[in-house]
Amino acid sequence: MDNNNYLGCEMKVEKGEAGYVLEDVPHLTDYIPDLPTYPNPLRSNPAYSVVKQYFVDADDTVPQKVVVHKDGPRGIHFRRAGPRQRVYFAPDEVHAAIVTCGGLCPGLNTVIREIVCALYHMYGVTKVLGIDGGYRGFYSKNTITLTPKVVNDIHKRGGTIIGTSRGGHDKPKIVDSIQDRGINQVYIIGGDGTQKGAAVIYQEVRRRGLKAVVAGIPKTIDNDIPVIDKSFGFDTAVEEAQRAINAAHVEAESAENGIGVVKLMGRYCGFIAMYATLASRDVDLCLIPESPFYLEGEGGLLEYVEKRLKENGHMVIVVAEGAGQELLAAETKTSTAQDASGNKLLQDVGLWISDKIKGHFAKQPSMPITLKYIDPTYMIRAVPSNASDNVYCTLLAQSCVHGVMAGYTGFTSGLVNGRQTYIPFNRITEKQNNVVITDRMWARLLSSTNQPSFLRSKDVIEVLKQEAPPTQLLDGENSKTVDN
Amino acid sequence: MDNNNYLGCEMKVEKGEAGYVLEDVPHLTDYIPDLPTYPNPLRSNPAYSVVKQYFVDADDTVPQKVVVHKDGPRGIHFRRAGPRQRVYFAPDEVHAAIVTCGGLCPGLNTVIREIVCALYHMYGVTKVLGIDGGYRGFYSKNTITLTPKVVNDIHKRGGTIIGTSRGGHDKPKIVDSIQDRGINQVYIIGGDGTQKGAAVIYQEVRRRGLKAVVAGIPKTIDNDIPVIDKSFGFDTAVEEAQRAINAAHVEAESAENGIGVVKLMGRYCGFIAMYATLASRDVDLCLIPESPFYLEGEGGLLEYVEKRLKENGHMVIVVAEGAGQELLAAETKTSTAQDASGNKLLQDVGLWISDKIKGHFAKQPSMPITLKYIDPTYMIRAVPSNASDNVYCTLLAQSCVHGVMAGYTGFTSGLVNGRQTYIPFNRITEKQNNVVITDRMWARLLSSTNQPSFLRSKDVIEVLKQEAPPTQLLDGENSKTVDN
Amino acid sequence: MDNNNYLGCEMKVEKGEAGYVLEDVPHLTDYIPDLPTYPNPLRSNPAYSVVKQYFVDADDTVPQKVVVHKDGPRGIHFRRAGPRQRVYFAPDEVHAAIVTCGGLCPGLNTVIREIVCALYHMYGVTKVLGIDGGYRGFYSKNTITLTPKVVNDIHKRGGTIIGTSRGGHDKPKIVDSIQDRGINQVYIIGGDGTQKGAAVIYQEVRRRGLKAVVAGIPKTIDNDIPVIDKSFGFDTAVEEAQRAINAAHVEAESAENGIGVVKLMGRYCGFIAMYATLASRDVDLCLIPESPFYLEGEGGLLEYVEKRLKENGHMVIVVAEGAGQELLAAETKTSTAQDASGNKLLQDVGLWISDKIKGHFAKQPSMPITLKYIDPTYMIRAVPSNASDNVYCTLLAQSCVHGVMAGYTGFTSGLVNGRQTYIPFNRITEKQNNVVITDRMWARLLSSTNQPSFLRSKDVIEVLKQEAPPTQLLDGENSKTVDN
Amino acid sequence: MDNNNYLGCEMKVEKGEAGYVLEDVPHLTDYIPDLPTYPNPLRSNPAYSVVKQYFVDADDTVPQKVVVHKDGPRGIHFRRAGPRQRVYFAPDEVHAAIVTCGGLCPGLNTVIREIVCALYHMYGVTKVLGIDGGYRGFYSKNTITLTPKVVNDIHKRGGTIIGTSRGGHDKPKIVDSIQDRGINQVYIIGGDGTQKGAAVIYQEVRRRGLKAVVAGIPKTIDNDIPVIDKSFGFDTAVEEAQRAINAAHVEAESAENGIGVVKLMGRYCGFIAMYATLASRDVDLCLIPESPFYLEGEGGLLEYVEKRLKENGHMVIVVAEGAGQELLAAETKTSTAQDASGNKLLQDVGLWISDKIKGHFAKQPSMPITLKYIDPTYMIRAVPSNASDNVYCTLLAQSCVHGVMAGYTGFTSGLVNGRQTYIPFNRITEKQNNVVITDRMWARLLSSTNQPSFLRSKDVIEVLKQEAPPTQLLDGENSKTVDN
Repeated sequence: MDNNNYLGCEMKVEKGEAGYVLEDVPHLTDYIPDLPTYPNPLRSNPAYSVVKQYFVDADDTVPQKVVVHKDGPRGIHFRRAGPRQRVYFAPDEVHAAIVTCGGLCPGLNTVIREIVCALYHMYGVTKVLGIDGGYRGFYSKNTITLTPKVVNDIHKRGGTIIGTSRGGHDKPKIVDSIQDRGINQVYIIGGDGTQKGAAVIYQEVRRRGLKAVVAGIPKTIDNDIPVIDKSFGFDTAVEEAQRAINAAHVEAESAENGIGVVKLMGRYCGFIAMYATLASRDVDLCLIPESPFYLEGEGGLLEYVEKRLKENGHMVIVVAEGAGQELLAAETKTSTAQDASGNKLLQDVGLWISDKIKGHFAKQPSMPITLKYIDPTYMIRAVPSNASDNVYCTLLAQSCVHGVMAGYTGFTSGLVNGRQTYIPFNRITEKQNNVVITDRMWARLLSSTNQPSFLRSKDVIEVLKQEAPPTQLLDGENSKTVDN
Repeated sequence: MDNNNYLGCEMKVEKGEAGYVLEDVPHLTDYIPDLPTYPNPLRSNPAYSVVKQYFVDADDTVPQKVVVHKDGPRGIHFRRAGPRQRVYFAPDEVHAAIVTCGGLCPGLNTVIREIVCALYHMYGVTKVLGIDGGYRGFYSKNTITLTPKVVNDIHKRGGTIIGTSRGGHDKPKIVDSIQDRGINQVYIIGGDGTQKGAAVIYQEVRRRGLKAVVAGIPKTIDNDIPVIDKSFGFDTAVEEAQRAINAAHVEAESAENGIGVVKLMGRYCGFIAMYATLASRDVDLCLIPESPFYLEGEGGLLEYVEKRLKENGHMVIVVAEGAGQELLAAETKTSTAQDASGNKLLQDVGLWISDKIKGHFAKQPSMPITLKYIDPTYMIRAVPSNASDNVYCTLLAQSCVHGVMAGYTGFTSGLVNGRQTYIPFNRITEKQNNVVITDRMWARLLSSTNQPSFLRSKDVIEVLKQEAPPTQLLDGENSKTVDN
Repeated sequence: MDNNNYLGCEMKVEKGEAGYVLEDVPHLTDYIPDLPTYPNPLRSNPAYSVVKQYFVDADDTVPQKVVVHKDGPRGIHFRRAGPRQRVYFAPDEVHAAIVTCGGLCPGLNTVIREIVCALYHMYGVTKVLGIDGGYRGFYSKNTITLTPKVVNDIHKRGGTIIGTSRGGHDKPKIVDSIQDRGINQVYIIGGDGTQKGAAVIYQEVRRRGLKAVVAGIPKTIDNDIPVIDKSFGFDTAVEEAQRAINAAHVEAESAENGIGVVKLMGRYCGFIAMYATLASRDVDLCLIPESPFYLEGEGGLLEYVEKRLKENGHMVIVVAEGAGQELLAAETKTSTAQDASGNKLLQDVGLWISDKIKGHFAKQPSMPITLKYIDPTYMIRAVPSNASDNVYCTLLAQSCVHGVMAGYTGFTSGLVNGRQTYIPFNRITEKQNNVVITDRMWARLLSSTNQPSFLRSKDVIEVLKQEAPPTQLLDGENSKTVDN
Repeated sequence: MDNNNYLGCEMKVEKGEAGYVLEDVPHLTDYIPDLPTYPNPLRSNPAYSVVKQYFVDADDTVPQKVVVHKDGPRGIHFRRAGPRQRVYFAPDEVHAAIVTCGGLCPGLNTVIREIVCALYHMYGVTKVLGIDGGYRGFYSKNTITLTPKVVNDIHKRGGTIIGTSRGGHDKPKIVDSIQDRGINQVYIIGGDGTQKGAAVIYQEVRRRGLKAVVAGIPKTIDNDIPVIDKSFGFDTAVEEAQRAINAAHVEAESAENGIGVVKLMGRYCGFIAMYATLASRDVDLCLIPESPFYLEGEGGLLEYVEKRLKENGHMVIVVAEGAGQELLAAETKTSTAQDASGNKLLQDVGLWISDKIKGHFAKQPSMPITLKYIDPTYMIRAVPSNASDNVYCTLLAQSCVHGVMAGYTGFTSGLVNGRQTYIPFNRITEKQNNVVITDRMWARLLSSTNQPSFLRSKDVIEVLKQEAPPTQLLDGENSKTVDN
């Protein structure tokens, strides 16, 4: 991916009084002047006939921060999502394409279904196709015709009916395909990397002067995308993770010094592990990538495990897949010489930590343990979205379609403080959302599990030295996992 | 309940620049000056030791509206919830009581559990008791001792371990009991009526000059409490309602002209019915209290049912229990004379509408129908809360405890735009939260079911004449069901 | 239905030594001599290539009773189901039809799927059609083409994809349709009445001398069909009923003198109620059609309810829909004069008993109760079959297809003592399967709930006077609900 | 364990006419003559007062085979379980102990609950204790007091409340503990090895002449215990396995050349894998220990995988944990030299086969695959038993208690052809129950998945050479997984 081009994507910023800042999204008219517009077809839709002020006011914006002081600055705002009075596409002119990239996440099919239905039923669009199997499908596969009938029941199934894959982002080939096939609306559903790719496609489309909108819908089961309240599928994933934690708890309780270890998703951030732990309350130790830990010695993990077993007779450990990777990496370096292929095994932190704990107690014959390790990852990813995520996916898809029809481009649809907004690509991709371990939510977790913070004095200092994150005023509540 | 006294409860209002308004909550020091304060015990809690700015800034507030214009007024704000630097109770001085009132709702036990745990583990309080069976338990029953051990697993069970009941609000007896037993923190979990009762208790406690805090936690499976984003248990209820809708769909599909009717909760507002319909997408008709309908004639319900059966061969109807009550009442008036006891049957709108539909088709032998009626109410109310509601209940309970320990009183804890806040009682009780049928969310539903709006020309005019609700700028997104 | 003809259907009985009796099923060659036969196509099926003795021995039979004495008579036997060496249909000659009649039951779609797949994959048959909407579909509707592709996923859905209805059994029209369409295999899935109808069709087909097999697959969620171990869908229904009982328990526990009433299926027999009660263990009273009870006076239901509430503070009642109908009928007779249309309400025993209990306690102001009534019937019927029922349905369907291909006719496929058998129609339809209340299984239930037997001295005598049922030696174990 | 002693445990065999054989179980009076007897307390139990012939006839037996010929021999029979007219223990004399050994299995808690309740409520016994953590708890731990109150809700939880462990079978210490504590009824719940241990304990108890009964309840989630119809928890496990298979299917469908691999329980037999596959119908390949396979070459696994992917684009593989161990062992032998610690990884057949498949396709860049491996073992074992298993566990526990009170000893309770029986220990332990791959059930599976049999010509010959198993006449139906 051409990062320079990407960074070249300047933000449209508008400032107002009292520190008000609007980080706006691009529009087709930014580079194609004099585009014709059409009245929004929703005007004549019977379902919307009694809706007052159905169309979003052109001035509506949503603040990124909602904890405010009487005299504080108003801060960054985003453009509110929703239907506009006039649209930049005639229905029969639209040729839309949807692509899903990366790993599975509950709700993908619902998002696909609702984009298709919104285009058909709200805007009278009839040419919608699915790109087969992620980015590479643009240039290496046939497309899949999507109609309301085809997508009618897909929200009840996990996975994605149009397939997905990692990688395959070849800018020229993809944009050639868009141009050659006459696609003029591209809906790109995927995570961090996918959204970066979408930004690159947007820039190339713009460079070529095509009347084609590129919009993103953030998909990340880990909830690692910044700015937005939470990603779709997250609620479902936390719910489904309860099964694994319950099983680990039962296994642990039924054995002498029983330990149940559950590995959950979270490559770079520990939201699923944290929320699943808080929701369950049967967990004694939760490890996440953001919070370093150490095994040996005073205040270390093994000491805590031993203490907990002596107190309770059993314990449950939840570990995010990205936790402790620096410890694993340190070990791998020395052992790589001998065992080139061992790499894979060592990178599974769940197995690694299980081995460490077993090794520790193997040295104490008086304290035999029984450890059971559960990796429910694919059983969580593959379930259909729950009711709450289903509604969320619907709003997300419809908001995105409204924005696209209105001619906005180069944006991601996202929920900010409970309102659907359009967010410039770079805001979403410039950094990742993380659990802030100096935030109250993590303190709640520590208090709930009674686990040590694993911070040695020097770590505490380091942590506190970190620049106060933009989230400092926030609570990290339920449906606002963390903004920054 | 003494309504004058209730209305006499004035709000503490503070105004700022640019139209900023803070609707503040009362504090013990409003009527008991010179109360001693103590450093917050959380300061020495290891779990919280690395949290930066753990304590909420005294100036933190949360706006009620988050869709704003560059030059718009800032509007109403509420005090942000969270721990304060100093508390107004010494741990061993606290004698807390928890009471649950009204119907069951998923999450009640989680809220109870988390109040108990927050008091014990965060603030070192050890005297917490449950009032048995709602308000009347204050004066007619023994109390139930609540400890972390007692409540340890209760979040996995539906219902409420301290029992509940309707009514029983006897102000003098309740406040006598509070005074006589030496209770100085009262946590009241219940709906609209219960919160009104809490306001009355607060005023009497204040009148008597007692150092006793009265705090509410809003509980309403119907989501009919205003201001707050959504009530706990709502997500779980919508999820569980899917089972009934699925069953109705299967029954309908398997019969010729099959009709499945599902009655869902919603005495005065149709949120559960609306969200369950949107999440399911198998529903052809959703009736809610807010949207009047009529049976006979052009554009009427029966015409639509007939049309739908002819098109699809089957249909699913979701009806909120409070829908169409004006039609039922009209009928009851005439028939009451003959049948005094028939009242009950007639007030079940699900049975009533089923009978009307059956009667309609009984007159058309060429179009025999098969109608199945499902009332899953108690099967929905009685399930344990799901993971998302579990986390939500935890934050709600902890926020309430923080506020109580900090000496605030006469308030309800509630989520506003994703942030925990303290809201004056009267804001919660002065009106109900309703589905705004001129809002886009209801339009989405109409579009999803394809049902008619049932608004005759005169109704449309009437609806549009209504004063623009404060929600006019809002989107009605997922976790913000509707503010007003 | 012509009952004489039906009774005219004589059984083929073969006797052996030591009291051995084989009640055999008819065969096409009974009335059409000299039919050509073909080698079974399974011989060349690779999946079956290593199966030893794949074909059932012509002499294999299964005893109806398996509790035996050293010197006891061997008793009645049925022909064992399974593939035969030679079949009476060439694959391309077969024109099969499947019909489902009566109420929904979990597993219907699985049975349909597996008949289709067995015909296609095992026997190379490609002409299989579904009769739309029960018996009347034979003459009033178009048929539905069934292929392995069409039925591939239907076992994951509740209901029946070919529709169902009650009644519509018009012998001449149905057999005309069979004859006119050239159907030569009829698979009839339905309960008691449906199987009687199948017997009548079989006789007419035989009278006309058609080379057409008529086979039944017993479907009854109530498990009221005799001889067979249990009906498909029963396990799933008992499982699903647990949800309703749990909900009733939670509602009851959360209220003062809380009573949860659950109505379960069982028009004439109480198997679902009995097994659901035994599986749950939260039930205090289980009422079934087979066990009479009375309300008032000593040893009556109301006395027991009162006693139970005083002991435990709450209780759960499970009532089969057919329980106490004689009591309801007695009341209806007197009240009919005044209220002609009240009939329907009165016949719902769940509502009736709820009203009686409420009425009883309304007279005792010192003992207010809270009663919640749950009717989960349609939510139970409409779920897809569980894994155990899925496997069961597969074996049932395959066994039936094997018998039909082998030229047997006029039979029902059924599991007897864990073995698939072919049972003559009249054995299935001559009487119903009932809970034998002098059997140990019911005693287990009484012991588990601690409820009274409601038998007055005179009843005990009457019950004991009844002729010893054929089940007297049986245990009524899990998967053998009751034989007779 | 002293195997000679074990084999020394002779069976009591009784023969009758027509080839009737009764394999009877030992009785206390076999080695302690003149024991006093008492009338069965159930005589005065109100719940049982109207049961006719409640007590099992002394001559009742149950045949092992139920597929019979008119003139065939009657074969082996077992003593029917159930209450006897007279018992050999006075209620206040009983001191019962329950122990659970080996891995978790759904239903353990239900069995414990029902033994306790049967002893208390049916026989008036009040001294029941749990041995903590398996066999070794007899001599190294305190016991756990078990009362109906303690066990009241445990059937709703997975695991075992009295803990379990593997090994720890020390005959002298265990029998000393029984003797010293005055235990006179020992209920031993466990699998194959545990039942062997029980036999040894029984013999030592008998050798010492103790009036103490030793009874077994077979527990094996794998269903690998012979003679009995199926083991408790099996149905629940097959049900729960569907989740993992569904997830694998979704993952596979959503990727290009997606492969989902699910490892299920089954160390030496493939029943769970086979039934889960048959119930699901989404599986393309099922590997079990009983059916050898090979990877490379014509007709090999890899060829089939490639073919399937080319046809369908994705596939699901279910592999029992014991499948292909001879292949793994062969590889380990060669690689052990280099990699001593690799042992563990290699023995996970799921990982092994995943690696083999990945390796195969790594060589074909034109056919990239995506493989996801799911191991749901602990998530399956730890769930509570479903309704069907709950009822089954109840009957099993009650039958066992009836036999013990009647003085039978040295037996295992078990369901045979749907009837509860008492089976001599050695019948249960002398061999294992296996999937007979020359049986029709396995052929059904092959036909359902379309997988090759992996039998090379020489294998076919070998398989067919095997002596015809006792199951040859059986169908392998649902609730009779396989007898032998």
